[in-house]
Amino acid sequence: MMIIGIDPGSRYCGYGLIQTEGFKVVAAGCDVIDVTRETTLGGRLRLLHSTLCKVLEEYHPDCAAVESMFFQKHIKSVFTLGHARGVILLALAQHDIPMLEYSPREVKKAVVGTGSASKAQVRYMIDQLYNLKASAHRDDAYDALAIATTHFNRVKWDKKK
Amino acid sequence: MMIIGIDPGSRYCGYGLIQTEGFKVVAAGCDVIDVTRETTLGGRLRLLHSTLCKVLEEYHPDCAAVESMFFQKHIKSVFTLGHARGVILLALAQHDIPMLEYSPREVKKAVVGTGSASKAQVRYMIDQLYNLKASAHRDDAYDALAIATTHFNRVKWDKKK
Repeated sequence: MMIIGIDPGSRYCGYGLIQTEGFKVVAAGCDVIDVTRETTLGGRLRLLHSTLCKVLEEYHPDCAAVESMFFQKHIKSVFTLGHARGVILLALAQHDIPMLEYSPREVKKAVVGTGSASKAQVRYMIDQLYNLKASAHRDDAYDALAIATTHFNRVKWDKKK
Repeated sequence: MMIIGIDPGSRYCGYGLIQTEGFKVVAAGCDVIDVTRETTLGGRLRLLHSTLCKVLEEYHPDCAAVESMFFQKHIKSVFTLGHARGVILLALAQHDIPMLEYSPREVKKAVVGTGSASKAQVRYMIDQLYNLKASAHRDDAYDALAIATTHFNRVKWDKKK
């Protein structure tokens, strides 16, 4: 099964793909969609949508795990993040890819073992799990792999039951 | 000039088109995109996007006026409305339609003359301006025509200066 993890952002959107077979898992790819070269919100959303659609058409993931929305201090951030997230959910629906949501706390718990883990701890675990070279990837790509891994852990757990 | 006004909503999205020529204006069409028959958020966003794209391709508006986001009591409403709004701005950008935003207060001031006008007053004025039959349209379609009218008033004002 190919799982895509997505860490939504209005400027940088991380994605990470993992290929699973039974209880085995390998990283298939990860990157960050950087839309900051576009100056308008509409232009950024268009670039995010077209780039994500290309990724979905290249990897054909079976399902997607997306970070759920959480409380942000600034209401404007909620608005802007909501716009980007809407476009991501649209791209997934247009490709008939089922989507599950995981909170940052669930991701930390699944990857490190505790919901209060730091971002650095999450990235260290992802680095170890997939034998990545930390310097080669941007943080949001790591976070996206962590979200995909959270979904893989859920699937494993369901199989064990 | 053809102006489309859009009143974003995650369940019902109103749109209204007005055709302007100098200082003259007529309503060219208005309706509500109802996405409630879809049960998932992704499905609703996909239906909203595809229906709005069809409207844009039928009327070829020169510009769009969209209600700006405002404070909502419930944070969940902000998230969901942000998703729908992201998809609307995407559709406009994909059709190269420039977009301007107007707050509910600006719309009320432009249409009724005071920012504290009631929704009923706004609809009454729109009804009078375009000779509509109130019962034939849903509220969100009226609101969308009011948003388009606000942009027309701004354009008129700029021409007069």
